[in-house]
Amino acid sequence: MNKPNLFTIITPRLLDLYDIQNSVVVVIDVFRATSSIAVALHRGCKAIYPVDDVEYCKKLAAELNALSAGEQDGKIIPGLQYGNSPSDFKAELVADKELVLTTTNGTKLIHLALKLGAQEIITGSFVNLSAVVDYIIKSNKNIYLCCAGWKNRFNLEDFLFAGAVLDVVEKNFTIQCDSSLAAKQMYQLHKNNLKQFIQLTTHWHRLNSYNNVAEDLLLCVTPDFAPVLPKYDGVKLIQNQT
Amino acid sequence: MNKPNLFTIITPRLLDLYDIQNSVVVVIDVFRATSSIAVALHRGCKAIYPVDDVEYCKKLAAELNALSAGEQDGKIIPGLQYGNSPSDFKAELVADKELVLTTTNGTKLIHLALKLGAQEIITGSFVNLSAVVDYIIKSNKNIYLCCAGWKNRFNLEDFLFAGAVLDVVEKNFTIQCDSSLAAKQMYQLHKNNLKQFIQLTTHWHRLNSYNNVAEDLLLCVTPDFAPVLPKYDGVKLIQNQT
Repeated sequence: MNKPNLFTIITPRLLDLYDIQNSVVVVIDVFRATSSIAVALHRGCKAIYPVDDVEYCKKLAAELNALSAGEQDGKIIPGLQYGNSPSDFKAELVADKELVLTTTNGTKLIHLALKLGAQEIITGSFVNLSAVVDYIIKSNKNIYLCCAGWKNRFNLEDFLFAGAVLDVVEKNFTIQCDSSLAAKQMYQLHKNNLKQFIQLTTHWHRLNSYNNVAEDLLLCVTPDFAPVLPKYDGVKLIQNQT
Repeated sequence: MNKPNLFTIITPRLLDLYDIQNSVVVVIDVFRATSSIAVALHRGCKAIYPVDDVEYCKKLAAELNALSAGEQDGKIIPGLQYGNSPSDFKAELVADKELVLTTTNGTKLIHLALKLGAQEIITGSFVNLSAVVDYIIKSNKNIYLCCAGWKNRFNLEDFLFAGAVLDVVEKNFTIQCDSSLAAKQMYQLHKNNLKQFIQLTTHWHRLNSYNNVAEDLLLCVTPDFAPVLPKYDGVKLIQNQT
């Protein structure tokens, strides 16, 4: 039997070069949307609505009686309740609540994948690495590991997460894709010093210059800290029940 | 004194995210446009007109009484005289002649860089690595290493060449760019087995499946085989005279 194909897409700008219909798209935004999403769901949040517009975030949160969250330049956006940090979403805050989350890179990519016809959209970060790996192996579908990047530029933390997935699933897929080969090798080069190497990335410096968020960013690269699988139903992300 | 900036752009699709005005853009299309361009100029070709349209290629070659060259799917395009292989451009053929060359990825990127306002456009491949390195260090301008990729997708051979440049020039520039960090590390990982590793790339397989061009592709990754600096004057590429 032919194995399904797997591709790594290094920025959202390249997603339309691929035929993602009938496939599973893994949206990757390690710093920090897809880390925060996994952590919030793991801590009991019922659903997360990813939106890319601040005014709509406020409006929807009010309508749903949900929590609202979002940051800009490292600060909570005025009018929203919480930031975009995994550590904001403590169990006592999010359990049995819904959350409307506004982010730039990750949310736009979720919406783009939907628009381009992805059959399934899930989100991944180091905090839910094993859940992503298990799901895509069982899916028996073509897989697109899509890095959200930063304003459409390439970034390393998302690429390294793609590499971490590839490091495990390689034998389960047909992979003819230079991005996948490079991602896997970069991850293998740094898997034993990931928490040091990640501090060399541009996004680390950008976020850490706004605020001292080192501990928060290190949590984002902690494997299986939040072992859930967020799945998008076209409107909201909920924990996939296996 | 502040050092100029250097960025690596992994596909032409991302070039408009950067402000390339007043800068030097290095167009990289290792397999095979920018390798062929350096080899032809090194062997005495007077000028190369890069064009992206086959009919215009024929017309311009006729007007200029120049040679015409271009391939599609590994075959010489009907109506043109030569393919797109460095080994096609022997000294006895190209010396003191002009050449109109049609290619897909490399030519489109040259035209895009011009349109986006690059101050200078040069071309690079392993065959003219040292010439590129010397030029960009002396230029004292911001540098954009732009990979042509394959139909806007990421490819490794162009990325590795960017890494080879970075391996030498790193200390001469301010580099805050994850693509540059990854390119440099991938090159350093493979600099001692480049001719083996390059055979794992998708473009190698694609070209080699059309025709057995292994020898030709290995030439493209041979450092300083054609030590010239092709520079674009807005219409044609000529050898830069230092």
